[in-house]
Amino acid sequence: MHGRQGVATARLDGLPPIRYICYQHPFPLPIRPTKRYYKDGGNVMSQKVLVTGTSVRPELLQPLRDRGWSVDNPPHLLSEGELKKALSEADAYLLGGDERAGRDAIAGASNLKIIAFLGMGYEAYVDSAAALEHGVVVTNTPGTLSNAVAELTIGHLLSGVRKIHYYAHLYETGQSGSEEKQRDIAALHHGIVGMGGIGTRVAEILRRGFDARVSYYSRTRKPELEESIGIEYLPLDELTGVVDTLIVLTPGNEETPGLIGERQLAGARPGLVLVNTARPEIVDADALNDALDSGRVSYAAFDDFYKADGASRQELASKIPSRLLVTGHIGSLTHDARDAMGILAVKSIVSMLETGTPLHRVV
Amino acid sequence: MHGRQGVATARLDGLPPIRYICYQHPFPLPIRPTKRYYKDGGNVMSQKVLVTGTSVRPELLQPLRDRGWSVDNPPHLLSEGELKKALSEADAYLLGGDERAGRDAIAGASNLKIIAFLGMGYEAYVDSAAALEHGVVVTNTPGTLSNAVAELTIGHLLSGVRKIHYYAHLYETGQSGSEEKQRDIAALHHGIVGMGGIGTRVAEILRRGFDARVSYYSRTRKPELEESIGIEYLPLDELTGVVDTLIVLTPGNEETPGLIGERQLAGARPGLVLVNTARPEIVDADALNDALDSGRVSYAAFDDFYKADGASRQELASKIPSRLLVTGHIGSLTHDARDAMGILAVKSIVSMLETGTPLHRVV
Repeated sequence: MHGRQGVATARLDGLPPIRYICYQHPFPLPIRPTKRYYKDGGNVMSQKVLVTGTSVRPELLQPLRDRGWSVDNPPHLLSEGELKKALSEADAYLLGGDERAGRDAIAGASNLKIIAFLGMGYEAYVDSAAALEHGVVVTNTPGTLSNAVAELTIGHLLSGVRKIHYYAHLYETGQSGSEEKQRDIAALHHGIVGMGGIGTRVAEILRRGFDARVSYYSRTRKPELEESIGIEYLPLDELTGVVDTLIVLTPGNEETPGLIGERQLAGARPGLVLVNTARPEIVDADALNDALDSGRVSYAAFDDFYKADGASRQELASKIPSRLLVTGHIGSLTHDARDAMGILAVKSIVSMLETGTPLHRVV
Repeated sequence: MHGRQGVATARLDGLPPIRYICYQHPFPLPIRPTKRYYKDGGNVMSQKVLVTGTSVRPELLQPLRDRGWSVDNPPHLLSEGELKKALSEADAYLLGGDERAGRDAIAGASNLKIIAFLGMGYEAYVDSAAALEHGVVVTNTPGTLSNAVAELTIGHLLSGVRKIHYYAHLYETGQSGSEEKQRDIAALHHGIVGMGGIGTRVAEILRRGFDARVSYYSRTRKPELEESIGIEYLPLDELTGVVDTLIVLTPGNEETPGLIGERQLAGARPGLVLVNTARPEIVDADALNDALDSGRVSYAAFDDFYKADGASRQELASKIPSRLLVTGHIGSLTHDARDAMGILAVKSIVSMLETGTPLHRVV
């Protein structure tokens, strides 16, 4: 699965099938020494699995119990000492709470074969060096939130292009009747910035569902996707100059704040609809405010908003809801996405303990 | 084109291609006597076209002028006398204003071969009997609004399922943070009531774009669509009992008010999301209000709202925006949809005058 991107279905006996979107790993994963695992069904019977956090529903842990394994899912946040004690007896750990698996706890976990982290950013929760030293595999759950975020992005795009939220506000405040003609999604040229799991899904929906034209910019070009979905790669500055909508989906990291700035927005076609369901700061607040003032951007839809107070943030907030839609970071807030994370983490543990093959290994 | 349903592309020399969705005509159109038309390029040169109303942009009339035809598009509403005089010299009439082509005007229009009505419901604007008697063909512009309405319907569906409008309201009023998990569109079973042009397009977007399960009820079953899009037919009461979302798209006529009533909503699965971008009255207001109170319906999204004042309407309005989203009939309000109407009406005139074949003849 690693090194490729697309929709994959992982099937294991007794586990519900889960469709998730695979990310392309930025580097090939080295094969590292791992603790022995049990291929023989008999030996596997005695496995102990620790689960922390309360976001994995009990039903999703059933496949572990069905195998005769013991599952310990304490309802509270474990202290450092409690975690160390619990891990000392565990064969697998589904890390779904706010606990941190530090050096001490990992060193004392002589049977531990896998830490299945529930989510993407495991770094703050697992001492990777210690896990590596002690032959404990670490996995995460990439792609499980992509569909939920992609669907919300399409919702924000429709709310932006058709001004649904604003026109609902007009209706609610008795100002209905002054609505103006907008555009069909199918007739517009859409630009996606960031072609990871979410971008891929958004592009698929726009191409296959809406039959719309899609171009994209991504740090890494994806020729296979261009072929299979029918999208076109453009350098960022070129992309922002030709599209009718700009959909920002690039991950937040040191390089991305202000990626969409004054130069990109000043070069946009007048009336651009901007959708940002990634980190707000990827779009420069000053540049966005100016572009809304000049009409270069006609409407912007964000899922989450700038935290730093400033003149632009104030001015932007005053443009809600006529020019701006903001929701409070609800992109991945679906039962299906959260369940998919749990299902994938459980699958990874089963796969590791039964066959020695973890899913989505990161350490 | 008649008698089938699907996406068609009409191409005529010098006219932009237009993709529109064809409706299935409820009855086969008889061939009626029509006035002679001119196949010979030379004779066609002298054609006169009257265009009323201001909603067809001048650029869209250019194909008529390019053929050397004279185009008269008065900017004001014509009086009965003015219309009669203008029609007496016209070979074709694009009826895009609020004028009514009555018996007198049609009888006096000795060269008139076609009235191309801009829209669907021509009955109030054209004396059909007179047109028939005098061999004047009448056409309308079906399918041209379908994509715009279908896209808004998907926007309302996303706003309903993910509560985008409500959560934007929470953000705006400083209540952000209390949002709850919703569902993925892809994971839900969607039910469409009414499988005409709009329903077909909604089903296509849900199946091909979102990869979601779709069932439908329609007065006329559509086996070809079931096959090509991958949807399932269910009787109405059965449909409302098994779906997670109910999307109402059936046309408004004498039979449809209250089509979705107490029986249907009481039998729905708890938490149903209801989307109605057709006539509001197709969903019974009392039944909807009860279903929202009982939780049988979790959220409803309407494009247009009940006009008749009553207890239920008041109570429903009080559920905006936490349980209800309403926009003021913006479904077809896009430049693309309105242009498509004009392009199709112009095409029909060109086709009639050049080849004797009108497009979408209704009389």
